Amino acid sequence: MSQPLFEKLALVGIGLIGGSIALAARRAGLAEKIVAATRRAETAGAANRLKLVDHCGTDLAAACQDADLVIVCTPVGACGEAARAIAPVLPPGCILSDVGSVKQAVIAAMRPYVPPGVHFVPAHPVAGTENSGPEAAFTELFDGRWTILTPLPDSEPAAVDRLDAFWKGLGSLTQRLDPADHDRILAITSHLPHLIAYTIVGTADDLGGHLNSEVLRFAAGGFRDFTRIAASDPTMWRDVFLNNREAVLEVLARFQEDLFYLQRAIRWGEGDKLFDLFTRTREIRRALIHLNQA
Amino acid sequence: MSQPLFEKLALVGIGLIGGSIALAARRAGLAEKIVAATRRAETAGAANRLKLVDHCGTDLAAACQDADLVIVCTPVGACGEAARAIAPVLPPGCILSDVGSVKQAVIAAMRPYVPPGVHFVPAHPVAGTENSGPEAAFTELFDGRWTILTPLPDSEPAAVDRLDAFWKGLGSLTQRLDPADHDRILAITSHLPHLIAYTIVGTADDLGGHLNSEVLRFAAGGFRDFTRIAASDPTMWRDVFLNNREAVLEVLARFQEDLFYLQRAIRWGEGDKLFDLFTRTREIRRALIHLNQA
Repeated sequence: MSQPLFEKLALVGIGLIGGSIALAARRAGLAEKIVAATRRAETAGAANRLKLVDHCGTDLAAACQDADLVIVCTPVGACGEAARAIAPVLPPGCILSDVGSVKQAVIAAMRPYVPPGVHFVPAHPVAGTENSGPEAAFTELFDGRWTILTPLPDSEPAAVDRLDAFWKGLGSLTQRLDPADHDRILAITSHLPHLIAYTIVGTADDLGGHLNSEVLRFAAGGFRDFTRIAASDPTMWRDVFLNNREAVLEVLARFQEDLFYLQRAIRWGEGDKLFDLFTRTREIRRALIHLNQA
Repeated sequence: MSQPLFEKLALVGIGLIGGSIALAARRAGLAEKIVAATRRAETAGAANRLKLVDHCGTDLAAACQDADLVIVCTPVGACGEAARAIAPVLPPGCILSDVGSVKQAVIAAMRPYVPPGVHFVPAHPVAGTENSGPEAAFTELFDGRWTILTPLPDSEPAAVDRLDAFWKGLGSLTQRLDPADHDRILAITSHLPHLIAYTIVGTADDLGGHLNSEVLRFAAGGFRDFTRIAASDPTMWRDVFLNNREAVLEVLARFQEDLFYLQRAIRWGEGDKLFDLFTRTREIRRALIHLNQA
């Protein structure tokens, strides 16, 4: 890229996502200067040692001074407080964004602090690993993955386009969605699977008893995948569930209903009901592979 | 291996597991002759075309004539009928085994047909993929994976040792377990995760509605893993659930309880309960990695 999209990119929070944004932005030359800030001195030290950004400090507002793109990369539950802290220094014309896995709650938390003239464009890169912290960051995290932009009705189209171009520059595919649709879709494709993986790994651990070492040893296909998902960052995921409560509870209720249906089929030996569902889900996998997502 | 362990290995059923046994047995020179039989002419034709075995026919009993190792590789629900069909030709001294994911029900179904002088040693290779049929077979399937032997109280130790050596020769690690312990352990590590993956993929498909293509498109981390698991063979898994009913219903009840606990925590905003579980499951993943299973 001959001309950087932004002069100064400021990242508020520098974990897996923030750190990977910094690395990918540098790879593509998207910003002339990249700085970060995080509350914990230890995390800032790690970010500096790993040279993720030009400089990482612990003063959120100081980092955002003169930035033309500020991305809040904290857990969802901390976004409102971060916005409050940095709002006074955000210059007019600056784009303010985030990376939260929940959009309606983050918008509600951040929007009241957005100063006039600042373009607030919420976004969510649908990418991550079970690792967290600055050490987990890597340049390729967003390559070929989707980033969903959820502009507000009053978002300036030029600002949305600029953020869109930024995410494409990081390696992402981009898509725009209504915040409520985003939250409903992610509740089923991401939040519910994580909740279930956390649950089943806990259930297995409790159940093991004298068989516990065998349970771990024979952790085959299914369970092993679940333990990986259930190793995801506890703070991030607590915040996701608390902040996408309505959508998560809705899909959870449906899931429970469907699971009871199968439980009953097993109890009564109704093999056809099991077979029919298992055949249908196999087709869904094929459709997914067809969409090049698998 | 200078001396083959068996003169004639007969496989009853030649899908992913049977086919992979044939390929791995040939790689290690474990049997002088390897034959198979399967009810469907189409499947037998595929096995012959792929040269998985020396010969594959459709007459189960004919294939087992003069075999000193017979392994039933059908779905769990067909094991009893297969044993009935081949019993008359099993020569004294022959080892009869299976590969079922459930052990107590398979033992109950096969044992009545085992002729005197034939050594019945049930086994379960904890390995597989979401693909099925002879085309899915591959030589390395069992490499480094566990195979659980569940000998009966009257199993001859020398026969158990020989089957154990055979599985080690296929690339497996081996372990002996009581059939009831096996069924309880697999219910939690394998059967419940599969049931849940099937359920959630079905729930997602129903819920999607006008968002269906987005649900598939943004199928991130969690959900994508689930669709892979939920693409597993419908017949095999229907049989697993119907034949390990008690153990599956027991762990399912526990799982439901634990899930309702989290559902309530989400509804009431009790973040500490979520955080505590998520922290614990992260530790379990670390223990699993420590055990070199991840």
